[in-house]
Amino acid sequence: MRILGIDCGSQVTGYGVIDSDGVTHALVDAGVVRTDPKQPLALRLLEIGQALRAIIARHRPDAAAVEDAFTSVNARSALKLSQVRGATLLILAEAGLPVGEYPPATVKGSVVGHGRAEKDQVAFMIRSLLRLDYDIRPLDASDALAVAVCHAVHQPRRAA
Amino acid sequence: MRILGIDCGSQVTGYGVIDSDGVTHALVDAGVVRTDPKQPLALRLLEIGQALRAIIARHRPDAAAVEDAFTSVNARSALKLSQVRGATLLILAEAGLPVGEYPPATVKGSVVGHGRAEKDQVAFMIRSLLRLDYDIRPLDASDALAVAVCHAVHQPRRAA
Repeated sequence: MRILGIDCGSQVTGYGVIDSDGVTHALVDAGVVRTDPKQPLALRLLEIGQALRAIIARHRPDAAAVEDAFTSVNARSALKLSQVRGATLLILAEAGLPVGEYPPATVKGSVVGHGRAEKDQVAFMIRSLLRLDYDIRPLDASDALAVAVCHAVHQPRRAA
Repeated sequence: MRILGIDCGSQVTGYGVIDSDGVTHALVDAGVVRTDPKQPLALRLLEIGQALRAIIARHRPDAAAVEDAFTSVNARSALKLSQVRGATLLILAEAGLPVGEYPPATVKGSVVGHGRAEKDQVAFMIRSLLRLDYDIRPLDASDALAVAVCHAVHQPRRAA
């Protein structure tokens, strides 16, 4: 199963694509979409939308996953993030992808084993889980891969 | 100039289309898009997106306007609303529409004359401004028309 994980952010949105049978996971692609904070939000959402559509067209995932909306320490940034998340969910629904949504602690727990991991611990475990000999950077891209892995391990297992 | 105003809501999103020269305003269309709160948000955003695209295709507005994101009393509903707003901004940007964004108090002030008006006062003034002999209902539709009128009166006037 091919899974697209997305780490929504108001300035940097990470994406990660993996192939997974729920136990072993292989990296397909990962990266980030950066937008200029000086641009109007509508245009930045347009850029993110176009980038995600291109990624979906290139890799044809079977499913997608995002983190739950959450209240951040900063209400203003939570509202911005939610707008990126809304645009992202629209793109995923338009592409006909089922979307898994997971709380941040569940995502971290899926790769590190506990819900309070730092981003660099997540990155270290992603490198190990995907058997890579290099680090995935920026951290937003490895966070997106963690969301994809989280979705993979939460799928019901098929009988052999 | 034809203006599409949108009143984003997590369950009901209002829209209103007017033709305006900045002084007199004529109703073109108004209504609401309702989505089922039991459906996953991604599918609800898809419905809202499809409805807005159809409205844009039918009326071919020159510009669009929405209210600013704002923190509501309820953080959870503000986050939901922001996701609808993000999806809406993406649709508007994809349609190539310039998008005006106005704080709620500015919208109310544009139609009622002060920023603390109730929704039914806004509806009463919208009926008067658009010279209608009936009320625009539901209130989300008249709120959307208020956003459109706000955008109309904030346009720079052309010299005669």
